[in-house]
Amino acid sequence: MERKALVENIRRKGSFLCVGLDPDIKKLPECVLRKENPILAFNKAIIDATAKYTVAYKPNLAFYESMGLEGWIALEETVKYLKANYPDQFIIADAKRGDIGNTSQMYARCFFEQMDVDAVTVAPYMGEDSVTPFLGYNGKWVILLALTSNKGSHDFQFITDNDGKRLFEHVIETSSKWASPEEIMYVVGATQGKMFEDIRKVAPDNFLLVPGVGAQGGSLEEVARYGMTEECGLLVNSSRGIIYASNGEDFDVAAGREAEKLRNQMAELLKAKHII
Amino acid sequence: MERKALVENIRRKGSFLCVGLDPDIKKLPECVLRKENPILAFNKAIIDATAKYTVAYKPNLAFYESMGLEGWIALEETVKYLKANYPDQFIIADAKRGDIGNTSQMYARCFFEQMDVDAVTVAPYMGEDSVTPFLGYNGKWVILLALTSNKGSHDFQFITDNDGKRLFEHVIETSSKWASPEEIMYVVGATQGKMFEDIRKVAPDNFLLVPGVGAQGGSLEEVARYGMTEECGLLVNSSRGIIYASNGEDFDVAAGREAEKLRNQMAELLKAKHII
Repeated sequence: MERKALVENIRRKGSFLCVGLDPDIKKLPECVLRKENPILAFNKAIIDATAKYTVAYKPNLAFYESMGLEGWIALEETVKYLKANYPDQFIIADAKRGDIGNTSQMYARCFFEQMDVDAVTVAPYMGEDSVTPFLGYNGKWVILLALTSNKGSHDFQFITDNDGKRLFEHVIETSSKWASPEEIMYVVGATQGKMFEDIRKVAPDNFLLVPGVGAQGGSLEEVARYGMTEECGLLVNSSRGIIYASNGEDFDVAAGREAEKLRNQMAELLKAKHII
Repeated sequence: MERKALVENIRRKGSFLCVGLDPDIKKLPECVLRKENPILAFNKAIIDATAKYTVAYKPNLAFYESMGLEGWIALEETVKYLKANYPDQFIIADAKRGDIGNTSQMYARCFFEQMDVDAVTVAPYMGEDSVTPFLGYNGKWVILLALTSNKGSHDFQFITDNDGKRLFEHVIETSSKWASPEEIMYVVGATQGKMFEDIRKVAPDNFLLVPGVGAQGGSLEEVARYGMTEECGLLVNSSRGIIYASNGEDFDVAAGREAEKLRNQMAELLKAKHII
């Protein structure tokens, strides 16, 4: 999906919500576990209930791989279901891949040719030739880890060089030379609060994928205050807060309700910024 | 596999060779493409021809994922084949994973419980809680990226703080507090040559997984000179130089020959160090 289409979807729906499709078999509602393919059944129900309020879905690969073949099939079927029924949704394979050039190329083929998703999350540690093989696919995106939402983000991402530049700033500045804001986004955790100001100094125009609202404790208002651009420039992800909103028969209705709440907050923030 | 068993295997075989099982369907010999399951047939033939000379195998996940379901099945079957027929081989899932805690835990389950390999390569960018979920499995290992073999390793891994400490040194020093040398190894590319001296200052006792000999241009002698410990402390990987040694009917024989050559060089280096 081109950037222009993504921005239009955000305006039309009054939402920059991304729903994380991270189904853990140990947490699925009883009523779903009785189905033939519980993961797929769960995902379809969540998607049907939330699609009206969202512009993106983000399956995290770990949750599918951990179930072996069955999980891999469920992932492929979920992507197919999204593409067939909700073609305006931006699909992110949250894979955090990154390897030497010829190997990253295999991953790029996997996600952009076989699975045909819109974006893949990529880890920056191995540098340019681990990232660039994901570029150059029309309308496809790299979403590079910059400043993550977890506690461990403080272990290495804040390491500072002699000029006072931190690792995450190096990652953004250097990778901005490899790819335009039409094909690269950055992961910046909602838990980083005011750090969004610093991020916007080095990535003024890039979309940011923002995990960490909800279960991880990040604030949507703060993210919007410091991170929103004139084209919004944000995709805020919520996983557990939406998909496990209820554990009963009404799990999908509850998910829809939580997604709607977030969408309503987002619409206010978009209005305040005169984007809608 | 416990460290003691790994060291014994190295002594018994006079080898610290790891063969990278990275089958690219576009490069497989004609004679294999005619088989029902070409990837699995190729892997089995390579394993049978090289097992005598090796102590470890390292399938890189990208090569399997890029083939979708079929590839995933081939990977599982390859691991099963190794475990059934060559139980003394150390199996490394080269996955370069790393995600927030609850997600890394799903990956750990995938590789250590479902697939039951000995080790997984992990990317350090997201810090402690992305790595520690892989620890604590008996006889299982994290192999953390430190100083990689590719050109892009120079983009971020050498970023230096005020005290002159480089990112890869931070990664080793910090992660050494999370795990003992019985459960964590580091990836250090053979192309880094004399850098092994610096690595041994911060990781004197850890095993190092060393890619980059052969196709990528690293020197085995240099790696051994600067990197070998009294227990060897090295697993040197070769992928393309072995598995694509010939493109004809004799592809397996040629692979065996290349593996034997490397084993013979390794035996000399182990003798010179009085390890065997």
